[in-house]
Amino acid sequence: MNYRKIAHYLGIILLTEAGLMLLPVAIGLIYHEKATTSFLITIGILAAVGWLFYNRKPHKNNIYSKEGYIIVAAAWLLMSAFGALPMFISEAIPNYMDAFFETVSGFTTTGSTILTEIESLPRCVLFWRSFTHFIGGMGILVFVLAVMPRSEGSSIHIMKAEVPGPVVGKLVSKVTVTARILYGIYIGMTVLLIILLKIVGFPVFDSIVTAFGTAGTGGFAIMNNSIEGYCNPAAEVIISVFMMLFGLNFNLYYLILIKQWRSALKDEEMRWYFGIIAAATFIITLDLTVMRHPFSESIRYAFFQVTSIISTTGFTSTDYDMWPSITKAVLLMLMYIGGCTGSTGGGLKVQRIAVLVKNSIRSIRKAANPRRVETIKINGRTLDEGIVSGITGHFAMYMILVAFSIVIVALDGYDLTTTLSAVSACINNVGPGFALVGPAGNFSDFSYLSKIVLSFNMLAGRLELIPMLMLFSKIGISND
Amino acid sequence: MNYRKIAHYLGIILLTEAGLMLLPVAIGLIYHEKATTSFLITIGILAAVGWLFYNRKPHKNNIYSKEGYIIVAAAWLLMSAFGALPMFISEAIPNYMDAFFETVSGFTTTGSTILTEIESLPRCVLFWRSFTHFIGGMGILVFVLAVMPRSEGSSIHIMKAEVPGPVVGKLVSKVTVTARILYGIYIGMTVLLIILLKIVGFPVFDSIVTAFGTAGTGGFAIMNNSIEGYCNPAAEVIISVFMMLFGLNFNLYYLILIKQWRSALKDEEMRWYFGIIAAATFIITLDLTVMRHPFSESIRYAFFQVTSIISTTGFTSTDYDMWPSITKAVLLMLMYIGGCTGSTGGGLKVQRIAVLVKNSIRSIRKAANPRRVETIKINGRTLDEGIVSGITGHFAMYMILVAFSIVIVALDGYDLTTTLSAVSACINNVGPGFALVGPAGNFSDFSYLSKIVLSFNMLAGRLELIPMLMLFSKIGISND
Repeated sequence: MNYRKIAHYLGIILLTEAGLMLLPVAIGLIYHEKATTSFLITIGILAAVGWLFYNRKPHKNNIYSKEGYIIVAAAWLLMSAFGALPMFISEAIPNYMDAFFETVSGFTTTGSTILTEIESLPRCVLFWRSFTHFIGGMGILVFVLAVMPRSEGSSIHIMKAEVPGPVVGKLVSKVTVTARILYGIYIGMTVLLIILLKIVGFPVFDSIVTAFGTAGTGGFAIMNNSIEGYCNPAAEVIISVFMMLFGLNFNLYYLILIKQWRSALKDEEMRWYFGIIAAATFIITLDLTVMRHPFSESIRYAFFQVTSIISTTGFTSTDYDMWPSITKAVLLMLMYIGGCTGSTGGGLKVQRIAVLVKNSIRSIRKAANPRRVETIKINGRTLDEGIVSGITGHFAMYMILVAFSIVIVALDGYDLTTTLSAVSACINNVGPGFALVGPAGNFSDFSYLSKIVLSFNMLAGRLELIPMLMLFSKIGISND
Repeated sequence: MNYRKIAHYLGIILLTEAGLMLLPVAIGLIYHEKATTSFLITIGILAAVGWLFYNRKPHKNNIYSKEGYIIVAAAWLLMSAFGALPMFISEAIPNYMDAFFETVSGFTTTGSTILTEIESLPRCVLFWRSFTHFIGGMGILVFVLAVMPRSEGSSIHIMKAEVPGPVVGKLVSKVTVTARILYGIYIGMTVLLIILLKIVGFPVFDSIVTAFGTAGTGGFAIMNNSIEGYCNPAAEVIISVFMMLFGLNFNLYYLILIKQWRSALKDEEMRWYFGIIAAATFIITLDLTVMRHPFSESIRYAFFQVTSIISTTGFTSTDYDMWPSITKAVLLMLMYIGGCTGSTGGGLKVQRIAVLVKNSIRSIRKAANPRRVETIKINGRTLDEGIVSGITGHFAMYMILVAFSIVIVALDGYDLTTTLSAVSACINNVGPGFALVGPAGNFSDFSYLSKIVLSFNMLAGRLELIPMLMLFSKIGISND
C-alpha cells in the first residue's frame, strides 16, 4: 500500500475543497452575511491540513486498483467531514452529526435532509449545500483529473472507482481529456438550465441552486416545500426534463457533440430508461386521474416525480406520500433502478437492471435446454460472462447491505415503511422516502447510530459499494 | 415437447391425489361429517380426469429437462385446482378463488390463510388442509417416484425441478431409492412429533395436524390463534425444535442413519443455519426482555418465532406484529433466508445466502487485486463458477419477481408494510406477514388479482422460480 501517495492525493482533494469554498464566501460577501466567517475559518483549516497531507511526497509514483479505491473512499469521507464545518461553525446546523449527515447527503447527491426549516438559513450556507450536489454529481476526483493532469497510468483506477456503472468507458484515450470533456458537458447543461429557470421567473439565486440540485441529481431545494414551493408549472416541466437528461449517460452527449447521432439514438440503456419512465408515468398518471385529479395536472405531477425518483434527484412538486399505494410501489422500484451508467444519477443503474432481466430470461431458457449456449448482449455486443456475474453479484451485495442497514435502523423503532424507505432513499441517493421521511418529513429524528448507517449507505451507494466496504472492512487491504 | 408423456405423468399425479383423499374421507367417516361427501365427489372427478390423462400412453418414453419442469409446474397447479374442490363443494370456503388460494398455500407449505374462523370447520376439511402441507413438504412427485418406480433416466429431471436448493444430491445412485429414503425419514420424524405432542397433552387429532404443519414447514393450525391457542409452553418448545429440524437438509439425517456422524456435524450450511438462528434468537430475546417481558418467556417466544420464520413454517405463539420494529426487521430477513437446501423449508435457502455473502467478500478482494484468482468453497469443496453465477442470478430473478408482485398487489391500496410482507410471506412460503396479514390478520381482503399473484408467488417460491416462469412465460418452451 502506497500510503504516502494516498496522503498526497488526499492533500490535493482538501486543497481543492478549500478553493471551491471561495464561492460560498463570495456569496456571503454579496449578501453581507455573518456566516461567511465560518467558511473562511474552514478554508484555513482545509488549507493547513491539506498542505500537510500534500507535502507527504511519495517515494514511488505508481498506485494500483486497491489504492484507487482507498483514495476515493477516504476523499469522500474527508470532504464531507470538513465540508460540514461551515454549517456547524455558523450554527446553521448546531449539531455536528447532523451537519455531517447533511454534507454527505449533499456530496453523494442524495438530498436527504435533517433540516425542518430551510428558508431562514443564510444564503452562503444554502449555496454551499447545493454546490456540494454539483461537485459530487460528476465527482471531485474527476474534477481534479480535469484541472490538474497527473500520471495517466494511475488515474484510471481513480476514475473507475468514482464513476458509476459496471463498465467505465473512456471517451478518448487520455483520462484527463475525458474528464475535461465530461465536466464541459456538465457545466454547459447546468448553465443552460440556470438560464431557462431565470426565463420562467425564478430569482437568479434560486435558478443557480436549483440547477445545482438538478445537475448533480441531488435534490436539495431552498424552499421548505421543495419545487412545489414555487407554484411554477413551467419550471416544473423544465426541471423534469433536465432531471431526465442528467440521468442519461454523458457519453451520449459526447457522441452528439461529435455528431454521431445515430449511435447515440441507438443506445440500448437509453431506450430502457425512456421505456421505464414512459411506463411509470403512464401508470401514475392513470392512477392520479382515477383519483379525480385533472388529467393535465396528473401527468405533470407524475412525470415530475418519475423523472425525479428514477434520476435519484428527489425534488418534489407535491407530497407524493399522500398518493395511492400503487404509485408509491412504483416509485420505490424506480429508486432501485436509478439513472444510467455514467450519469450523475444513483441507484443500481438501468444497464444493470437490463442485464439482470436478460440474465433471468436466459436462465429459464438454459433450464429448458441445458446444452444451449447463449450470450447476453447490450448494444448488439456480447457481454463478457465475468461482467454478467459481476453485475448479479453486485446486486446481491447491494441487497445484503440494504438488509443489514434496515435491521440497524429499525432499532430506532419506526414503522417498516419509514425504515425501509429511509435506507432505500439513502443507498440509492434519492433523498426523500415515504411516511416519516416522505416529502413532508425529514431525517432529523433518527438516532446517531442510524445517521451513521445512513451516511455510510449514501457513500456506499454513490461510490458503488466497493470503496466504502473495502475501507471499513479492510477486506483486500491487508494481504499485499 | 413430449406432450403425451406429460399428460401421462399428470394422470398419475391426479390418481395419486385421489388416493390421498381417502384419508380425509376416513376422518370424515370417523366424525360422521357431512362434508365427507365433498371429498367423495372430488375423488370421483380426480379419478375420471386422471384416468383420461393417464391413458394418453406416450409413443416415446424419454423426457428431458424441459418436460421435467413443465410436468412439475402443471402438476402443482392441477393438484391445487382439484385439491380446492372439497373445501368449495362442502362450502367450508364458499368462494372457489379463496379455496384455490388456501390449497396452493397448503401444498406449497406456505400457510397463508384466507380464513377468519378456523375452529368451526369440519374435521375432515381441517385434516385435508393440513395434510396438503405434509404432501407438499417433501413433494408429491418425489412421493410418486418413491411408490412407483419408473424409468430412471427421466425421473432425475423431475426431482431436480421439485426438490429445493441450488444442487440436488442423490443420496444413492438410484433416484427411486433416494425418494424412498427421504420419505422414510420424513414420515419417521413426523410420527415422533405426533407422539411427543400427544405426551405433552395435545388431543390426538391436533397432534396429527400440527405435526403435518410442522413437518411440511407449512404452518396451518386448527386454532384461530395458531399454537398460541393451546397455552402449552412444553408443546411450543417441542414444535420449535422440530421446526428447526425440518428446516435442515434431509441428507444430514441420512448421513446420521448410515452412521457418518462426523460429516453430518461438519456440514457448513447447517452451521450457518444454527448460527443465524442463535443470533436472531439472541437479538429478539434481548429486545423483548428490554420491553419488560420476563426472560424465560422472551427466549421461548423468540426461539419459537425465529425457528418458525426461518424454517418458513409460520406458526405463531404470540402476535409478533406487536413486537418492536427491530424484531420485525429481523424476522423479515429470516423470511428471505429460509431453510436449508434439501429441507422442506422455503425462502432462498441458507446455502445460497452463504454463497452470496462469500461472493461479495470475494468481489471486494478482487477489486483490490484484480489479478487475484479465488474460488468459493462450501464444505471445503470448490464451487463451480457456473453454480456461483447461477445462485447470484437466481437471487436477482427472485427479487425481480418480488418487485413486480409488490407493484401489482399494491393496486389493492394497502400500506407498504402489508403489501411487502404479504408478497414476502408468500414467495418465501412463510405464511403470515405483518400489519393486515400479521398473526392477527389474514389474506381474505385481497382482490382476486392479488390472490392470483400471491398464489403464483407461492408456487414460484416452492418450485424455485423456473418451472412456474417457464410454464407461464413460455420462455424456452417454444424453441425445440
